[in-house]
Amino acid sequence: MIPGLNDANIMLQPIISFLGPLGSFSHQAAIECFGSTNNTLQAEVSFNDAFSAVQSQEADYAIIPLENSSNGAVVQTLDLLADRDNLYPDIVVSGEYYLAVHHCLLMKKAKDGSENTSKTNPEVSKFYSHPQVWGQCTRFLSGYNGVEKQDASSTSKAAEIVSKDNDAKSAAIGSELAGKLNGLEVVKANIEDDSSNATRFLVLQNLKSNRTQAIKPPQKSQSCSKPGSKCKSLISFMVDHTSPGALADALHVFKKYGLNLTSINSRPGGVQAWQYVFLVECQRVHGVHDDQVVDKVISELKKITQTCRNLGSWEDQLVESS
Amino acid sequence: MIPGLNDANIMLQPIISFLGPLGSFSHQAAIECFGSTNNTLQAEVSFNDAFSAVQSQEADYAIIPLENSSNGAVVQTLDLLADRDNLYPDIVVSGEYYLAVHHCLLMKKAKDGSENTSKTNPEVSKFYSHPQVWGQCTRFLSGYNGVEKQDASSTSKAAEIVSKDNDAKSAAIGSELAGKLNGLEVVKANIEDDSSNATRFLVLQNLKSNRTQAIKPPQKSQSCSKPGSKCKSLISFMVDHTSPGALADALHVFKKYGLNLTSINSRPGGVQAWQYVFLVECQRVHGVHDDQVVDKVISELKKITQTCRNLGSWEDQLVESS
Repeated sequence: MIPGLNDANIMLQPIISFLGPLGSFSHQAAIECFGSTNNTLQAEVSFNDAFSAVQSQEADYAIIPLENSSNGAVVQTLDLLADRDNLYPDIVVSGEYYLAVHHCLLMKKAKDGSENTSKTNPEVSKFYSHPQVWGQCTRFLSGYNGVEKQDASSTSKAAEIVSKDNDAKSAAIGSELAGKLNGLEVVKANIEDDSSNATRFLVLQNLKSNRTQAIKPPQKSQSCSKPGSKCKSLISFMVDHTSPGALADALHVFKKYGLNLTSINSRPGGVQAWQYVFLVECQRVHGVHDDQVVDKVISELKKITQTCRNLGSWEDQLVESS
Repeated sequence: MIPGLNDANIMLQPIISFLGPLGSFSHQAAIECFGSTNNTLQAEVSFNDAFSAVQSQEADYAIIPLENSSNGAVVQTLDLLADRDNLYPDIVVSGEYYLAVHHCLLMKKAKDGSENTSKTNPEVSKFYSHPQVWGQCTRFLSGYNGVEKQDASSTSKAAEIVSKDNDAKSAAIGSELAGKLNGLEVVKANIEDDSSNATRFLVLQNLKSNRTQAIKPPQKSQSCSKPGSKCKSLISFMVDHTSPGALADALHVFKKYGLNLTSINSRPGGVQAWQYVFLVECQRVHGVHDDQVVDKVISELKKITQTCRNLGSWEDQLVESS
């Protein structure tokens, strides 16, 4: 029996940390992946804080963006996973979640109760959003040439500004959640240029935590045990960069065991200039590959690398659109 | 005889484009790599403009940052090299340059001709610099707790502000070049935390240009012909991401020919979400590897990849510190 676990129901509620503010896409991913009832969703100020919360077991899970389909890898996340200073030795990846990134035109609800949504081109006096968003909604904004665009620190902040603005025609561009949390109306949904834009999040947990053994997240991560199911693993390593062929030899180990390489990222190793830490994600298929294949790969890698760490395994959640 | 080349000396002056403003680290790299006499150094507003200038042959060369030893790859450069829309089909990499990144405390020269440099801790009323720089000079700045720090759009801009400021105690943090161009004095040099901080630049040229055949840059890039000299090549490719083992197979080609992998980067492929374009840099040694080894690798890669492009070869300029 794990002490405390049966004391009260509240103790069984998983605590999930994410990068705030409330209404951020990380918040939305936390809600969609874990659910907002029977969970405590805890907004953090930085990615480091989210990692620290899991390492110190203040939180049971963290949900962290790894890459966006248009913009590529989130470098801060890669650096925290590379963990060059060994600050997060007990953190492992135990799941992933693909979040569709949609932008909405958000405005205050009309006082007479009429809905703005009925209007084809609602009149807007001023837009508020995060600066990255302007470039993601160019088609929609081309219908509003000459309307002032004001940068905000986040799309949630933009929604908050609009909710407090006396001008009924000011509008925010952001997620449906940011609108909802600030009492705004979704006047137009999916105004982004690229409707397939998505962000992949990783679910982190502490491998020493007893609580996460008892309170599994809704998706059966770490199981990878359904026949035919695909399982991904993340492995970080550094090789002697002065030794010719060292990186090719390390990557060859994955090929030797028939593992599909699904992603390779490199970041400065932090020890010496121009030496890198590699983060390699590979995929195995239950029933095709040996269940111990990742352990075997790690064991071989350890012989030919300077550092090597198994950052965890989880069930592949990507549904191929082709 | 190439028409125009012998018309006047001015026609022989290479035009080198770089990301401005004047006094930027790219400007400094252009000066150090090509020299500032007998060259026309042309500041561009964006990386895209520098690429376009070489593609259209308005410029003979561009010098572009690829990666920083502390911060890693420059994503905009990777995306331009990946060239998903085939905007720069004639651009090849023909050289590289490693620039040491040093920061200086820059102040106005005293009116009485005395030098601030003699002072151990010169009095400063306000600092100006690019926001990234504050984090790179934390040790130096810890001696100035409470002094206001004002963000500027570049370190060059910071130096310009200080040069026009009536307050003799305002100071910029930036490169020696930024100080020199704005008539400032280097009060303290090398105030950065990490003295090994460096940025690697690539030299780009147009493979169809006759001019660049006649006017070689000072470093013998593209030759790679000294016995024992090391030569790097950059190759981009995309693989069928639904085909297990496709990436491992592509990387195996480099191993098969004994080429050392010196860097791997991936960026979103731009066609479909979660499909990547890989930028692989490999190294060969003159006299050890076959001179045609890269052509052979490209030829094999073309059979197993969806797209594959040889982005050029050049002499390795990295001097190992170990």
